[in-house]
Formats: sequence, C-alpha cells, structure tokens
Amino acid sequence: MKGKFITLEGCEGVGKSTQLKLLIEYLKENNIDFVCTREPGGTAISEKIRGIILDKDNTEMSAECEALLYASSRAQLLQEVIIPNLEQGKLVICDRYYDSSFAYQAYARGLGLEFVKSINTFALAHGVPDLTLFLDLTPTEAFKRKGGADLNDRIEAIGIDFHNKVYNGYKQMQELEPNRIISVDCSKEKANTHKNIINILKEKGIL
Amino acid sequence: MKGKFITLEGCEGVGKSTQLKLLIEYLKENNIDFVCTREPGGTAISEKIRGIILDKDNTEMSAECEALLYASSRAQLLQEVIIPNLEQGKLVICDRYYDSSFAYQAYARGLGLEFVKSINTFALAHGVPDLTLFLDLTPTEAFKRKGGADLNDRIEAIGIDFHNKVYNGYKQMQELEPNRIISVDCSKEKANTHKNIINILKEKGIL
Repeated sequence: MKGKFITLEGCEGVGKSTQLKLLIEYLKENNIDFVCTREPGGTAISEKIRGIILDKDNTEMSAECEALLYASSRAQLLQEVIIPNLEQGKLVICDRYYDSSFAYQAYARGLGLEFVKSINTFALAHGVPDLTLFLDLTPTEAFKRKGGADLNDRIEAIGIDFHNKVYNGYKQMQELEPNRIISVDCSKEKANTHKNIINILKEKGIL
Repeated sequence: MKGKFITLEGCEGVGKSTQLKLLIEYLKENNIDFVCTREPGGTAISEKIRGIILDKDNTEMSAECEALLYASSRAQLLQEVIIPNLEQGKLVICDRYYDSSFAYQAYARGLGLEFVKSINTFALAHGVPDLTLFLDLTPTEAFKRKGGADLNDRIEAIGIDFHNKVYNGYKQMQELEPNRIISVDCSKEKANTHKNIINILKEKGIL
C-alpha cells in the first residue's frame, strides 16, 4: 500500500473526539491529504449496520451477533473506503477499528481473542494499521473528569467493571503488538496530548 | 440437546418451499411438536439484518460483508430460537442454514471454505444439524421446470454458471459430511419427493 493507515482507540471519555478534531485541524493546516472515517459506519451499508448495532430496541442481541455485525461493517468499510484510499497513497485515519472489537468484545464481553480474531480474518489479512494510537486514561479517571458516566449512553451505562475490562484488554493487545499500538498519555491538558500525538506520528514516519 | 435439528438446503427452484409446506402439514397431522424458522431471519434482529442483505440498493456490498451478515443473523437465530427450542426437546426445522453459506459464499462466490468456516465458528460449535436434507436437482433442470430464471430475483438473475457452482458446492459439502447431509432426488413428482423425505426422517430416527 502506498498510503498510511492509522487508527485511534481508547475507552469512553478519554477525549478521543477532541484529539481527532485537533489532529484533523493540524493536517489541514499542513496541507496533508487525508481521509477520516469511523467505525462502525463510514459507508452507506456500514451505517445501516451501525443502526442495528446501536438501536436501543435490540436489547436481546447476543454478544456473538454484535461482534459479527462489527466485523461485517468493517469488511465493507475496508473494501469501499480504506483500501482504495491507501492504494491512492492517502493517509487514512479511522476512529476505532478492530482493536475496539478485541478490547470490547473479546476481553470485556468475554468472547475471547481467538473467536474475535476468527471472525476478523479479512481485516487481519488485508487491513492492518501502520500505527494505532491508544489514548491511555483509566475509566475511573475518565469518568471522574467528565463528572460521571452518561447513563443515557448504552455503552457508558454498563458499569465501571466492564470499562476496566476494556482498558485491560487494550493493555493486553498492546503487550502483544508493542510496535503497532502506541500509548498516548491522556492525563494532562488536551494540548499536551495533541502535541504527543503529533510527535509520535513524526517519529513513526507517518507525518 | 434433547430435541432434533434438521435443515433444508438446495439450489433455487428445486421446490424447497413446497417440500417445507408438505413436511409441516405432515407434522401437524401427526401431532409432532415442531418449530419452523428460516435464514436469513427468524428473529426481530435477524430480520433487520435480512433487510440489509436483500436490499437491492446495496449493490456495492462486498462478498465478505455479505457472508458476515449471514453469520451474524445466524448467531442471533441460534441463541434466540434454535438452541432454546432444542433444549425444550422440540424438533427444529430451518429453511437454509450454514450449508447455504458454504455453497453460495465459500464455493460460488469464491470466498473459500476456510474463510466461511472461520466466521461461522459459533454455529459450527453450538448448532450442528442432526440432519440436512439436500434437495437435489441441477440448476439446469430446476430452471427448465420453472420456465427460466426469475430475472427480478437478485440471486436467480446472477446466471447459470453461478448456480452450477452452488450445486457443486453442495455436492462437495456432502462428500465431506455424508452422514449428516442426505440427498433427496427432486427430479420426480413433488408427492414422490415428500415421501422420500418422510422415509429419510424415519430411517434417521427423527420421526
């Protein structure tokens, strides 16, 4: 692939949207050609799948069904957006990617890494990120900073134990792939975190 | 599992719906408790997934995305309908199941058996049919009988080569699992085929 593929990961409330916005501003100011997309979603079909995943009426959805829906949305996004843009030499940024499935589904929901990897063989074979930025802040710190979990948000409302499992899942993924998944300390000011992100992208030869 | 799980498979136009109807009538007449479901679909969530799969607007859907959507719909159907009814000792009949994914996606669409098996590990581990009836009629014979393919049907309209690959896929699956997948000759009258199906179900200890 001529382009570079980077993904942003992290638990709820760590400031991922804010950092994504600051990164996009930086890229625009520096005239760097990029495509920004998100998971689940990013294509017409993937957004329809996102609608099923996030629909609050679908309370009876099994963890396996949910994980397979994420994988189907991901396959479509890869083939329609990520791979074609990488082939054109663009920088592709994705807000969440398969590490979210590993952290949330494999570790926190307890489906196991082997199962979640088996249903993501397409992405693992054809869409490995060049770099994954793990916005590192514990759920306890993140919820404290935002004044508690948003109980109207299906995921935030699950409870701190679940989010601690997600966090530990990310940490374990990082141990398995320390060269690809890089921690970004998010405990300080957002400007500080942004500066760290730009430095990492420069060090890794992305920018 | 206390109950028995049987699935009906076959190419387009072989008379699967007719045989399912005749089988249901037989079971009712003989006071045999059963549950009949279908793929993709069979639960509220799975029907929503079916809607995405069959939506003619989704022309850009990749074969991998499609296969994963079938697998997600299947996981939900298994957990919500098939497994609970088998645990209650019921006879569960499913109109199409994972052999359709193997024949259509792995063989005919060319995704390969290994890939389609990897995304169906949940069903392969927790929902293996006791018996699969393969309604055996070549696509050439089937389309001849119904006066040609229905060009308004997304699947039928693909062309005879595709359907021959599906047929050969079923034949190869049958070679791999000759005890589970039983051929039913569908070249004669529908009453004859129905009689064959009942005989097979009795021989196999299902009825």
